Amino acid sequence: MSLQTDKLDSDKTRIDQALLAGLPDCDARPQRLHRAMHHSVCAGGKRIRPLLLLACSELYTAIANPLHAAVAIEYLHTYTLIHDDLPAVDNSDLRRGRATCHMAFDEATAILAGDALLTQAFKILSHEYSGQPELACALIRDLATAGDSMRLIGGQMTDIESEGQILAAETLNFIHRNKTAALLTASITMGLEFWQPSRQQRKLAQELGQEIGMAFQIIDDILDSTADTQQMGKPAGLDSSANKFTYVSLYGVDEARKRADAHSQNALEAAHAIGGSNELLLEIVKKISKRSY
Amino acid sequence: MSLQTDKLDSDKTRIDQALLAGLPDCDARPQRLHRAMHHSVCAGGKRIRPLLLLACSELYTAIANPLHAAVAIEYLHTYTLIHDDLPAVDNSDLRRGRATCHMAFDEATAILAGDALLTQAFKILSHEYSGQPELACALIRDLATAGDSMRLIGGQMTDIESEGQILAAETLNFIHRNKTAALLTASITMGLEFWQPSRQQRKLAQELGQEIGMAFQIIDDILDSTADTQQMGKPAGLDSSANKFTYVSLYGVDEARKRADAHSQNALEAAHAIGGSNELLLEIVKKISKRSY
Repeated sequence: MSLQTDKLDSDKTRIDQALLAGLPDCDARPQRLHRAMHHSVCAGGKRIRPLLLLACSELYTAIANPLHAAVAIEYLHTYTLIHDDLPAVDNSDLRRGRATCHMAFDEATAILAGDALLTQAFKILSHEYSGQPELACALIRDLATAGDSMRLIGGQMTDIESEGQILAAETLNFIHRNKTAALLTASITMGLEFWQPSRQQRKLAQELGQEIGMAFQIIDDILDSTADTQQMGKPAGLDSSANKFTYVSLYGVDEARKRADAHSQNALEAAHAIGGSNELLLEIVKKISKRSY
Repeated sequence: MSLQTDKLDSDKTRIDQALLAGLPDCDARPQRLHRAMHHSVCAGGKRIRPLLLLACSELYTAIANPLHAAVAIEYLHTYTLIHDDLPAVDNSDLRRGRATCHMAFDEATAILAGDALLTQAFKILSHEYSGQPELACALIRDLATAGDSMRLIGGQMTDIESEGQILAAETLNFIHRNKTAALLTASITMGLEFWQPSRQQRKLAQELGQEIGMAFQIIDDILDSTADTQQMGKPAGLDSSANKFTYVSLYGVDEARKRADAHSQNALEAAHAIGGSNELLLEIVKKISKRSY
């Protein structure tokens, strides 16, 4: 257990260093744009996606250094946060206690910094793995497919369109299967590209990603609702602070907990079934499912 | 001459059809997002970048169908237009006489539609050329490098930062070398990836792209200033309608014309030097340099 925690800590350090190394310097022209990119990339965060990718790449013998792919997926994730925070979208001033990109700089800079991080993700994959073009192409395909208008961006669009509405389970599932689970799934499938997964292992990776994604989102909703109840004595229901309908709104806290546990259990089983040296992967799945709630 | 014009017309029709075919249907979920993508992609335009790419791919025998790459570069170009038009950036209500994306839909949808077209560009390249991963990887590298924070986006950022200022030639050149010429250069280098260019031909492609880019931009500035002078009797200088410093502000109309001619001449020479079946490429360069001014 402690061995795995140490490994996660050292992986996170490697990821943070590589995230910095993968960006143009802060004083590269134009400085303001590069400072904005650094601001958002270095704003902390759990680095779940790159950690998952590294853990999955290490299940069997990796044919190349997966760190660049880990960097690419975190850049893509960071661009989604910058654009989601914009005044025209979620209008958030703070993220993890720091000013969001458009607050620290301005809207135009934040729009362009997000665009640049999305572009940088694909640039890094095409440059760093150019010696193994089949690998590069597979990684780019996985990432671009997860991030497209029918998955990640489609989930975000539907989330925006649904604000203030009572949603059917099907719509809520569509949002989070795409907005949250698609990129977590890409973290896993991109890790698998570093060895030769069987068709069955690819299928399990999809399952694992979806189950982790649902567990992750439901737990997020429970944590938000608990905070709300404590701070505002607000009953479960439409989360009026964000005006968003959540899994707690849909199921109530107790049933949501049960469902999160079931998704975590399914995720563990899928991770087991993929096989290989999976201690680290199992540890990450357990950590996601055990965030205090 | 007429043969080349016919070929350009038929290429443009093929491009327009492929641009439509490369998008998810308008009724794909979420519909509003896909309708916004269609709105901007199908808003017309000269399709200079995809036409250049096709013409360059046909200089020698192409190893694959270049049409998907032509589509990818136009999607990337379209995303830059959508984001440039946003209220926080250039705040344009109209483009080519039609409502811009955020006017026809809303800001959040326009931000996401731009993100989705940028992503779709890389998705198409990684999917359509997966059977030739070396080609796919080279095309993605060319496109992502041209579109990054030091080139296309860097040029746009510097353009925004320079609004209302008198600029040195060096700054104006930095803006347009990156904002305009980088993607035109990528159109050419991506075309070349479809055969095996020599090192010298790659160098000439860079030169051709920069020269076309400068000719294109200076002519744009002259056309704008001529319109201004006719409509408002405004002398050359700071273009107050856009509050932007242009090549006409820097050089005056006569000197700007001379410089545009020189860049066009250099472009023609570079195109000649690349060799191959270059009739169509020469025709495009001539068309760019002969826009009425």
